[in-house]
This record gives sequence, C-alpha cells and structure tokens, in this order.
Amino acid sequence: MTGKNHIGFTLSSKGSRTFQAVDPSNGQLLEPFFYSANAEEINTAVDLAVNACSSFSKLSVFRRAEFLKEIGVEISIDSQLILARYVCESGLSELRGQTELRRTIFQLNSYAEALLTGEVLALSIDIADDHIVPPRPDIRKMNIAVGPVVVFGASNFPLAYSTPGGDTASAFAAGCPVIVKAHPLHPGTSELIATCIKRAAIKTDMPEGVFSHLLDSGFEVGQQLVLHSGIKAVGFTGSYNGGMALAELARKRKEPIPVFAEMGSVNPLIILPSALSLMDDVTTKIAHAVTNDAGQFCTKPGIVFLDSSQKMDAVAHELIRKIKITESKTMLGANFLSAFNRGIGAVSKLLESQAPHTEETITYGSATPAAFEIGQDRFMRDERFYQELFGPYTLIVRYKDLNGLHACLNRLRGQLTASVFGSEEELRSQTELLSLLQENAGRVIVNGVPTGVSVCPSMHHGGPYPATTDVRFSAVGADAITRFLRPVCFQNYPQELLPEFLRDANVHNLYRRLNGVLCKDHVVHKKD
Amino acid sequence: MTGKNHIGFTLSSKGSRTFQAVDPSNGQLLEPFFYSANAEEINTAVDLAVNACSSFSKLSVFRRAEFLKEIGVEISIDSQLILARYVCESGLSELRGQTELRRTIFQLNSYAEALLTGEVLALSIDIADDHIVPPRPDIRKMNIAVGPVVVFGASNFPLAYSTPGGDTASAFAAGCPVIVKAHPLHPGTSELIATCIKRAAIKTDMPEGVFSHLLDSGFEVGQQLVLHSGIKAVGFTGSYNGGMALAELARKRKEPIPVFAEMGSVNPLIILPSALSLMDDVTTKIAHAVTNDAGQFCTKPGIVFLDSSQKMDAVAHELIRKIKITESKTMLGANFLSAFNRGIGAVSKLLESQAPHTEETITYGSATPAAFEIGQDRFMRDERFYQELFGPYTLIVRYKDLNGLHACLNRLRGQLTASVFGSEEELRSQTELLSLLQENAGRVIVNGVPTGVSVCPSMHHGGPYPATTDVRFSAVGADAITRFLRPVCFQNYPQELLPEFLRDANVHNLYRRLNGVLCKDHVVHKKD
Repeated sequence: MTGKNHIGFTLSSKGSRTFQAVDPSNGQLLEPFFYSANAEEINTAVDLAVNACSSFSKLSVFRRAEFLKEIGVEISIDSQLILARYVCESGLSELRGQTELRRTIFQLNSYAEALLTGEVLALSIDIADDHIVPPRPDIRKMNIAVGPVVVFGASNFPLAYSTPGGDTASAFAAGCPVIVKAHPLHPGTSELIATCIKRAAIKTDMPEGVFSHLLDSGFEVGQQLVLHSGIKAVGFTGSYNGGMALAELARKRKEPIPVFAEMGSVNPLIILPSALSLMDDVTTKIAHAVTNDAGQFCTKPGIVFLDSSQKMDAVAHELIRKIKITESKTMLGANFLSAFNRGIGAVSKLLESQAPHTEETITYGSATPAAFEIGQDRFMRDERFYQELFGPYTLIVRYKDLNGLHACLNRLRGQLTASVFGSEEELRSQTELLSLLQENAGRVIVNGVPTGVSVCPSMHHGGPYPATTDVRFSAVGADAITRFLRPVCFQNYPQELLPEFLRDANVHNLYRRLNGVLCKDHVVHKKD
Repeated sequence: MTGKNHIGFTLSSKGSRTFQAVDPSNGQLLEPFFYSANAEEINTAVDLAVNACSSFSKLSVFRRAEFLKEIGVEISIDSQLILARYVCESGLSELRGQTELRRTIFQLNSYAEALLTGEVLALSIDIADDHIVPPRPDIRKMNIAVGPVVVFGASNFPLAYSTPGGDTASAFAAGCPVIVKAHPLHPGTSELIATCIKRAAIKTDMPEGVFSHLLDSGFEVGQQLVLHSGIKAVGFTGSYNGGMALAELARKRKEPIPVFAEMGSVNPLIILPSALSLMDDVTTKIAHAVTNDAGQFCTKPGIVFLDSSQKMDAVAHELIRKIKITESKTMLGANFLSAFNRGIGAVSKLLESQAPHTEETITYGSATPAAFEIGQDRFMRDERFYQELFGPYTLIVRYKDLNGLHACLNRLRGQLTASVFGSEEELRSQTELLSLLQENAGRVIVNGVPTGVSVCPSMHHGGPYPATTDVRFSAVGADAITRFLRPVCFQNYPQELLPEFLRDANVHNLYRRLNGVLCKDHVVHKKD
C-alpha cells in the first residue's frame, strides 16, 4: 500500500490534500496517508482511458474474458493482505470478508463466461434483399462499448460492489476502460485491489489507461470525473442523495451521459397468516436478515407487514425479541453510526410511547439492533416511516385487512425487492398482491429473505425509481454489462471491414440473429 | 373523422379549445375542427391506461402479436381514406404516402413476428443449487412492460413515426398501453389511424384504455401527460428543443421516467478520392437524398465532405447543380418553411459572397433546394455551420487533408448516421476514419446514402447525444421494443405462480437462458 493514485500503470501523488482511513470499531486512524487526486491527475487518467478505449473496446470478447479472469487470480494471490486491511477498514468480520472475496472472484469469472457466449454483443445480420420494395442493403449490428466509465464503490461491500465489483466487471466486459473513485472508508482495500487489477492488465497485455484508481476523502474528484467530456457513463452504488447528485451533474454536461445509480430500498416483507406454522423459522430468518453485518445491506428488509390478529401479536413480539437480542455489530463508519442513531431516535420520538433506546454520544463502534411496531393508520399518515434507515432496524406494520395491506404497499415507492411468506395455497389466492409487488419491485421473493443477492444470469438487482435511476437495468448478473454497451449498425460494409463477429463466416460459433432468426449459421449468399 | 379525442373506446370533445389542420401547399384551412383535450380527458385517458396495463401487460406475446397484426389489417382497409387526408395535411405526394403506409404495416407485422420468438422477453432461468456456497435458490427472470407510454408523433412521417409508428408498435409489443398525443400538423390522418387501432383493439379483445388518442394544437396536453404519475415512459421523434423539453419535464417528476427522444442529426457524408470514377452516380444519389420530399428526413445528409483538390471542384460543382435544379417541394408546414428560409438566409449571410436566394415573405408552399460550399478553416471556426437545417439543403465542406477531415468530424456532435464513399481498397487504409465515424454515429454506411431506414432487426436508428437522449436504444427495428421493457426477477416461486414462459415446461418452444446457456430445453430437476 502506497497511499498513491494509480494513473494508468503509474503511481502518482501530486495533490496537496491527504487523508487517512479509520478503524470503525475503535476510531483509530490507520496508516498510510492517502493522496487525494488533483485536477492534473484526473485529466491524465481520463486522457489515458480515452486513448485506451479505442484499442480495448475493439479487443475480442475472448481477450476481455481473459483479463477479467486474471483479475480474479491476482486477487486470490493477495487475498490475505486484502482481507486483513478489509477487516480493519470496514469493521466487518474476516468470515464476511472471505465470503465477499469469493463472491467477487466468482462474479469476475461469471461475467467472463457470459462474454464467451457472445450474447451481450447482440450480433445481428440482415443480408441484402433486392426482391423487396424498397430493396434492403446488407445491414449488420452489434453492441460496442459506450466509452470510459467512472465507478463509485459502495461503502458496505468493499469488494463485491466496489473497486473490483459488479460495475467495474460489467464495464470491462463491455470493453469500457474504468476509472474507480475509491470509497474513502476503505481506501487501503481499494488500493490493494487496484494493484491486482494493474498486474492483471499488464499480464494480459491490456492498454495502459484501461484502469485508473483515484483517491479522495470528499466529493471533488468524483464530480470532476463525472463532468469530464471523456467520460461516457457512470456506475454508482450508495445513497439516494449521492446517486441523484451524480445524475444531476451528468445531465448538466454538454453531452449528458447515462448514470446507473443503485440507491437502496426499504424492501417490504409480508408474512401471510398461512405462514404461521413455520413462524419460528421465519422470524429467525428475518431477524438475521435485519441484523446480519449490522443490517448494512441495500436489500435489508426495512418494513415487515403482519396482520393485526391476536395470533400475529406473538409473531411480532418474537421477531422484535430476536432482533433485539442479536449481538451489536460495528458499523462501517462514524457517519453511518450517528445517522443510524439519529434515525432510531427520530422513529422513537414519532412513536412517543416507546422510549429512545440509543446513546447519541457514541461516535464509532457498534449499532444496537432495533425494531418497532406500528399500526396501519399511523403508518399511512407519516411518510417518515417509509424511509430507508441503514443499519440493524426494521419496522413492523400491523395491517387490518388485505385492502389495508395494499394501501400501505401503495404508499411505498420503487423497491429493489419485495418478499412474501405464505403457503402455496394462500399465495394462489393472492395474485393481486403478487402483481402489486412485481409492479413496485425489481425482484419478488416467495418464502425467503431478500438479502444474499445470488450472482447468476437470472438475477435482477434493480427496480423502479428511487431504488435505481433506470428501471431497465440491473447492477448484478451478466445483463449488468448492457448498461455500458450501445448498438452500432454497419450498412453495406465489405466483409473485411466488418468486425470479425459480424462477418459471413461464424468462426467462433456464436449465436447471431440472422435475418431475424437466432442461430449459429454462417451467412450464405444465394445466387440469383 | 370527428375531430374528437379517443379516450379509450369513447369519443370525447369536452375541451373548449379547437384548431384546424392546414393544407401546407396553399395555406387553406381543412375541415373539421379538432377539439384539444382538457385536463379531465387527459386524466381519464391515463386512468384507463393504468387499468388496462395490469391485464394488457400480462397477455401472452401471441395475443399482443395478433393485436399488432390486426392494426395493420385495419389500416389497409382504410388506406384510401387515410392517404387522401395524408396528402392534404402533409403536402407529401400520394406515392410517398403509399410507401410510408406499406412500411408502417410491415413494421407492425415485423414487430409481431419478433414478439413470437419471445426473444425480447429475455427469458432466463437458474435453477436452485444447494451444492454451491452460499446455496442458490431458484431464480427466474423476464422482461415485462414498464407501464403506460406517451407517444409524440413526428411531423415528417405522419404514419411510420407517428400514431401507428415505431414508438406505438414498440410499446404495444412490450405490453404497454399507449396514449398518442397527435401531431397538430396531421390531426386528421392521426384520427383516422386512431379509429383503425380502436377497431383492432376491439376485434382482438384488448382491454379499453390500451390506446387513447389526444389532440392539441399546442404543448399543454403533452406536458400534462408527461407529468402524470400514471405514465411510465415517453417516446418522441422531433426537434432537439422539443425532445429536451420533454426529457426535462420527465426528470422533474416525483418519479423520473425514461424518455427516448430521437432529435435529428446532420448526418455527415464523406466522399473519398477513390469514389471519383463513380462520381456521376454518387452525386445523383446524394442530391436525391438531400432534396427528396423537401429534405424533411432526420437522416438527410446535411454536410458533405470533399477534399480541396481540383478534381473535387467539379464534383462539388456538379452536386450543387443537381441539388439546385431539383424541383421545389411543399414543406410540411408554414413554421418549417419559414425556419428553413431563415436558416438558409443565415448561412448565406455568414458566407457573405453568396447572395441570399430565398424570399422571406412566403409563408407556405415550397422550399427551394439549396447547397453551399465552404472551406475547412471557415467551417472549423463557426459552429453555426454544424446545426441541422431541416429541409432541402446541404453544406459542402472542402477539407485539406485527412487530418483536416478528422478535425472537422471531431467538431460534430453525436449523429444518427455517417456515410463514406470510396473504393474498398481506399477504405481498408481508412480504419481510423471508420472508427471515428463509428464512435460518433449510430449507423455507418459504406457507399450509400443514409436516407431510407430499412425496418429490420439489424437496423439501429439512434446514436450519441444530441442525436438521441440515450445512445443505448433504437427507434427502429424490433430491438426498439426494449425501450419499454424492464426485467423482473422471481425468486423461489412455485411453478403455478410463475408467468407461463418461465415455468419448467417450455411449452411454446422459446429460447430461454437456462443456467446461463441459451436453449429451448424444458427444465429438468435432478434428484440428489
């Protein structure tokens, strides 16, 4: 760890501002000092990315897959070093770090595998047809990189959603050079990863500028990057305010660019009466989803709906009990802890009868798990109850009847996930409820909790605004790559000038849409 | 023709404002009066669309394909009536009308065919796996409708890019109800089409509200529609100012929604020296592309680059001559004609030596084709030369050398198309030029003109900003459907609750991604 920026393959520390990471469990400053990038370094990084793009974006998917896999190999090699720093900077456990590291490498490999099928390129060929009116020229199309991408890492996943995470992997897979603005809560973990990515780029002979890594404790570097004309898209995971600020900057550019921001969610979870027989298991699962790793997940269930029957009183009581007896866990940083405690204080105050249970004086360390219960009418009256509160907390809402449940759900805005527990028989009678959940969320889960986002092609990690800035894209799964791709059409091109995958011979045996039909055929021209 | 709004299946004329269409060839007002929709009618149309969406969006692709095809049938039946009004309102010829009508029906049918393959649904299944760490639950995903869509028709394609055009066809194919805000230059053509769509909806048993058709001579109705919380996406084809105004409105909503606006282009066209032997044919093709239907195409070549050699002097001279001797053609409306004449006047003035050639006093009727010639230096100095000027006009730019050409091209912003004429041999030596064109345009054409956008799966009609508001989407070809789709993920769903296409049995033999591999297999669960 050097504390320096990686500008292409070069270490650089030209800026005058420095900062240090903090161990959130005890508030101690960690070595070394990190140098915030200055304007010159930002411009150099973008210039290198723009230059790299023209060659990197034209590399075959096989070469890009090799690069992605090599990043995983390099991260494996340094895993002990990375995990040690990860634990110090994030306050998360080593076990969690190991799981996240495995997931990150799996993700890099799975995007590489997806690339090899060629599907994300959406290869399409319509051969010339003189017999239709008007005659059609030869027209071929494929997806290419949008251009250099800026990635903002998430605080709560120093690996899987940060420097080597889904946004970076997606952009590389798409053929876009990446500039990571490191998250200031884990700059050391981020720099160790940057070194791995650099080694992978050199080993697999990628052009310099395919990756740069810039540091900053504040917002300036990120803002300058998003405003730079060389940048063509942005990937962000974090708060609503952060995501919207970047989207606003991107919109104000002379050339507005797409920003995919995943901005969190309250993830409503409904327990239907028919789940009662399994309730011990269900409450245990939910309590774990609420409190695990201090509840610092964008898919943490933040509102749990139970009907107001007497039978459900016991369930509510049991869920609150299980949440409250969970051991306190360190939060990612002082700001998170104080925001959580302020939030809990505010909810307590709104509910009056329930005394505030948190000490506002603690500035680092653990968050005490919390859960409150509230009636449907009170919930409906005050939108402060619908806000995401990041940390080990959930709100139990007691609905009167199904109409009441629908009314409550209609108050909520776009969500990443929605979950429902119930017997198959009861769910069959709840098609309207399932439709409503599907309308307002990107993923609907039956008899399961939303945490633990599986990395697989069918995963969708996205949802209607304000869960994300664009309901049509995902942050997880190989389809996330399409956020950074754009179609280009080649009309009447001689064979030799076409990109290899669009030529008549389907040398690599990839799926292509040939005259509208998906197949692996070579193009054969009929003689008239 | 009634002059009334179609609110679902009901005719309505509650508003107090009326307007008339104009015959642009002579300025005469056309019968009947059209009633601008009022706020009540707008709200009713959106409420109906929201209601219709829950059933329409869940219909199988087969039912939606049937609806699309039936619209084509109904338009065929009324084609004589439609074409007569089309000619009166647009000033375009009957022949052009016939071509556009055929193209529109072909488009509806081709989107229906594309739907039947199921590919736009992006069906994806990952079955549960207990053997991986952490275990993966059953996860399935498909695309569903984003919700009700507002479509703004284009002035220059009263059929193919308007009421029954690509945006409407895409939205229907996606399962989205559509509210068309009719273009005020062809309200009669639009209403006749609305009647066809209504008949098709009734015949194929679509829910009321799947389509509404609202009239307005101004901007109010469109603005209210875009701001309505029930609307979830917007399709627009037209001017930069119009598109950006709608995008801005959509952004300011409590829930921002995607706007796909196709906003035009100058469509640079380059003639390399090696094309000289074919120059007579080339200049004829370009002159036709510039002047055909008064040059009122978003793909009209607005800038033609020739080197400054003596040989090319003759080409420039010949191209200008061929453009200027073309018969004048009626423009779509008085505003278009006066904007064109003002634009030509402004360019003439900038060029000083060339006298203005237009009469500013004409308020309707024909535009006189125009072409000017300019040197590279003068071009580079003034961005007013790079603006799109809608109508029969092009600017010939004489570049000094390839560096000069690249410098000129780098001044241009995002384009729908870029074209280059040259021998295959010369083009092979121009890979950098082809790369540059590909970077800045959605479609690159070799030895052809950009007008005549073929409707086929490989077509891409889009491009970097400001050609469109989102470089990742197309307005033409079946992929245009994806503008109005969003993924939804179903986790751990019982078979019976899954959408039919995601169930284990692949009853309709559609392509699905099964555990990451594209195939038509049924899902078979292994016994442990």
